[in-house]
Amino acid sequence: MADVGNPAGHILEYAFNPRSIAVIGASDNPFSSGYHFLRHLIDYEYRGNIYPVNPQKESVQNRKAYRSLADVPDDIDLVICCVPTDRVLSLLDQCPSKNVKIVHLFTARLGETGRPQAVEMEKQIQTRAAELSIRIIGPNCMGIYSPAAGIGFGYGFPHEAGKLGVVFQSGGAATLLIQNGALQGLRFSKVVSFGNAMDIGESDLLNYFAEDENTEIIAAYFEGVRDGERFIDSLKRAAANKPVIAIKGGRGQAGIKAVSSHTAAITGSANMWDVVFKQAGVVRATDIGEMVNLAMLFNWLPPVTGKKIGMMGGGGGKGVISADLVEEAGFTLPPLSISIRAQLKEIVPDLWDWLGNPVDFSIWGDNGMKAGEIPRLFNESPDFDFLIVQISDENPMADDWWVNIIKMEVENTINISKQGKKPVIAVLSSAKPGYRDFENIRWRTVSEYRDKLMDAKVPTFDSIGEVVNAMSKFVAYWNKR
Amino acid sequence: MADVGNPAGHILEYAFNPRSIAVIGASDNPFSSGYHFLRHLIDYEYRGNIYPVNPQKESVQNRKAYRSLADVPDDIDLVICCVPTDRVLSLLDQCPSKNVKIVHLFTARLGETGRPQAVEMEKQIQTRAAELSIRIIGPNCMGIYSPAAGIGFGYGFPHEAGKLGVVFQSGGAATLLIQNGALQGLRFSKVVSFGNAMDIGESDLLNYFAEDENTEIIAAYFEGVRDGERFIDSLKRAAANKPVIAIKGGRGQAGIKAVSSHTAAITGSANMWDVVFKQAGVVRATDIGEMVNLAMLFNWLPPVTGKKIGMMGGGGGKGVISADLVEEAGFTLPPLSISIRAQLKEIVPDLWDWLGNPVDFSIWGDNGMKAGEIPRLFNESPDFDFLIVQISDENPMADDWWVNIIKMEVENTINISKQGKKPVIAVLSSAKPGYRDFENIRWRTVSEYRDKLMDAKVPTFDSIGEVVNAMSKFVAYWNKR
Repeated sequence: MADVGNPAGHILEYAFNPRSIAVIGASDNPFSSGYHFLRHLIDYEYRGNIYPVNPQKESVQNRKAYRSLADVPDDIDLVICCVPTDRVLSLLDQCPSKNVKIVHLFTARLGETGRPQAVEMEKQIQTRAAELSIRIIGPNCMGIYSPAAGIGFGYGFPHEAGKLGVVFQSGGAATLLIQNGALQGLRFSKVVSFGNAMDIGESDLLNYFAEDENTEIIAAYFEGVRDGERFIDSLKRAAANKPVIAIKGGRGQAGIKAVSSHTAAITGSANMWDVVFKQAGVVRATDIGEMVNLAMLFNWLPPVTGKKIGMMGGGGGKGVISADLVEEAGFTLPPLSISIRAQLKEIVPDLWDWLGNPVDFSIWGDNGMKAGEIPRLFNESPDFDFLIVQISDENPMADDWWVNIIKMEVENTINISKQGKKPVIAVLSSAKPGYRDFENIRWRTVSEYRDKLMDAKVPTFDSIGEVVNAMSKFVAYWNKR
Repeated sequence: MADVGNPAGHILEYAFNPRSIAVIGASDNPFSSGYHFLRHLIDYEYRGNIYPVNPQKESVQNRKAYRSLADVPDDIDLVICCVPTDRVLSLLDQCPSKNVKIVHLFTARLGETGRPQAVEMEKQIQTRAAELSIRIIGPNCMGIYSPAAGIGFGYGFPHEAGKLGVVFQSGGAATLLIQNGALQGLRFSKVVSFGNAMDIGESDLLNYFAEDENTEIIAAYFEGVRDGERFIDSLKRAAANKPVIAIKGGRGQAGIKAVSSHTAAITGSANMWDVVFKQAGVVRATDIGEMVNLAMLFNWLPPVTGKKIGMMGGGGGKGVISADLVEEAGFTLPPLSISIRAQLKEIVPDLWDWLGNPVDFSIWGDNGMKAGEIPRLFNESPDFDFLIVQISDENPMADDWWVNIIKMEVENTINISKQGKKPVIAVLSSAKPGYRDFENIRWRTVSEYRDKLMDAKVPTFDSIGEVVNAMSKFVAYWNKR
């Protein structure tokens, strides 16, 4: 790609910000993909011109339809192709007359089936596209989610854009990341699911996102690479510019087999990937859940290089378990300084000598509300590199009392986080209630206050174990830089 | 304890199934613990006689109150003491006249404060109780949850009993286990939070639960032990009788410090505990979340010793990631047998040669509903020791279509689980939606079907990573036996 490194005129701008889109195989049948891709453009309020193409229909989803791409009375930047493999070559032949820049082939059942005929067809498509200078995303992929442009490939994606760019070979895994991540407050700049990577692949996309000014963090899922040397180059460049969080799929025997029927990529040995990721300074995740947690940190926290934690909350056993977990991961919990102790003595004269780090909120009894002053003390102390507040979800007291405690703790946590003196992380387990459990005010409150924390951009985790795992990688990343 | 090993006449029956309970410090003030302990007896419909004791009140919570324990016109099996430390000795002195068997001291701020005066008071209480032959649970603990008897120490605990017995030094951690575990379908036989363990401690409780016929699984949280040799004996005996899942709190420096201000237990070295747990055959958990996951397996699955997994679902990238994780944990995914392939050929003639283990549900396209037959095929195959079904929560298609797929997958999963041919585990991520997210049918559906799976006693996990972690320990446990 001649224009790599120049996002302004980058070829991929035609995918993320096209002036016009034709959906080939657009349909009124909600069980067809041609229905969904068209509907997404409407639902996400795509800003350019939409041209449904369907040889049998005058209109599709109440929009005028065209019998073929050739019949569309406009130039087309992006074609979304939802028709079977045997119709792709003739589609490509029509592209030059419409100045088509990129074709996204949702079309699948090609190389990934391992069948000789399908592999041969994939090669023919590749050759024809190259001859016609048409760039291809896919085949066998979900394509583009570009919230600012109004393009999406799944339901319930946020309309609002964010700073996370996503380069995923798998559309299903990308969907999980978007849908589950959105619940935890993540928003996305641009997402590509690139499937079999017949043309535009991992390296092109990394190069693009490395320079894209709307993307501040890159999340990537690779199953294999076409050109190892180019890939390593691109990965290093991207990771030098911004944090790259990546999953390598297909490490073991079964994983490699699964990859071959998924995208037919060449997976490489697990060890080779370890070395590449390490050299490039990539933050490695093992699954989508961990990726969401890491993205929350990179999204909302400033760089953290120190390992001294001020930890609040977590009554009794929870505090003990938490202290063990953070220490075993190499963090420290410095004892409370003379200065903090002196201030505690004023606030709680009958308790101060008994408090430590972590500060147990459960021993405050009737003084419960005063515990809210601890976050302020900790936030002003030079003894801690970052703070963890464990909201008192284990409080065994009555719901009305407990709701007030939660409210106070969450408000204090948001307050110190907003002051920006120190990075602040919250732990408030969702506990995975079902819809029916929200009849209980406890679970409605937990849910409401988890949302408040995330709306205030405080990274909020389900457990101290998840914090420790994600923060270990986060701190290691910033120390390496 | 002379009667250890004889639950019928065991002293602890007076705690779990008392004929009468006096609440000392019973109150109408909802900000006092004496309010809560009395209210719990009423809310959980305690079957015996309840006697509120309060020197200033004629009635408490609409029940006749007594000025002192001595004024109660009945024998009392269990006293729940919520008054400050300086009133405990005189309370004990009144106990013999009422034939009191056990006093639960919720009363705290004793040895755990580390203050000489408080430590001395704890010793005096201990001595006096021993002289009077009154057994003590606590001090500094939440005491008893015995659903069959109608006794509880927190709000929203299940009224229904189950087979999990809980021996927890920490009441907060026990509350988390009960409240969060209940959401995942766990139910409890009897729970004790035993705090500073002045008298009845970890060994007595383990001995009791080892023999208790209502308890089939034991969950334990220890911070330290009073008598190491006796503890090891009790732990071994309990673990020989039934699965024991345990957390050791206070392993590192900060953890040990936190223990001393929590329950003042002597924690021992982390390494000593490793050896003891290993020798006894205890299943070790690191936090409450992992304990809930392990308890789900022991609760609902038969013993599993094999490592051959039949894995279904998990389109594309999710299948690849999952395959990696199970293999890296030492499980295997055997290739599909000739027999399964032959049957697949009949069901999906255009796909059969392309399917593997894990079976990717996402490639079925319009054949989606036929994927439902896979669980039946896998369930009848001799090639797998257990099955994992990943429900298609990453399906990027429209909600109405997707809801049908989820419904079919969950129903098929429940069907094969009910047949009991093989252990079946489901993965359906809650994705941690907030209450507001249930406006979206996607999250309501996920929630509804997670509940259906758990109601059908199918262990249901948020991620394949959690399955792998818990199943590794579960299979290791049954192989060791």
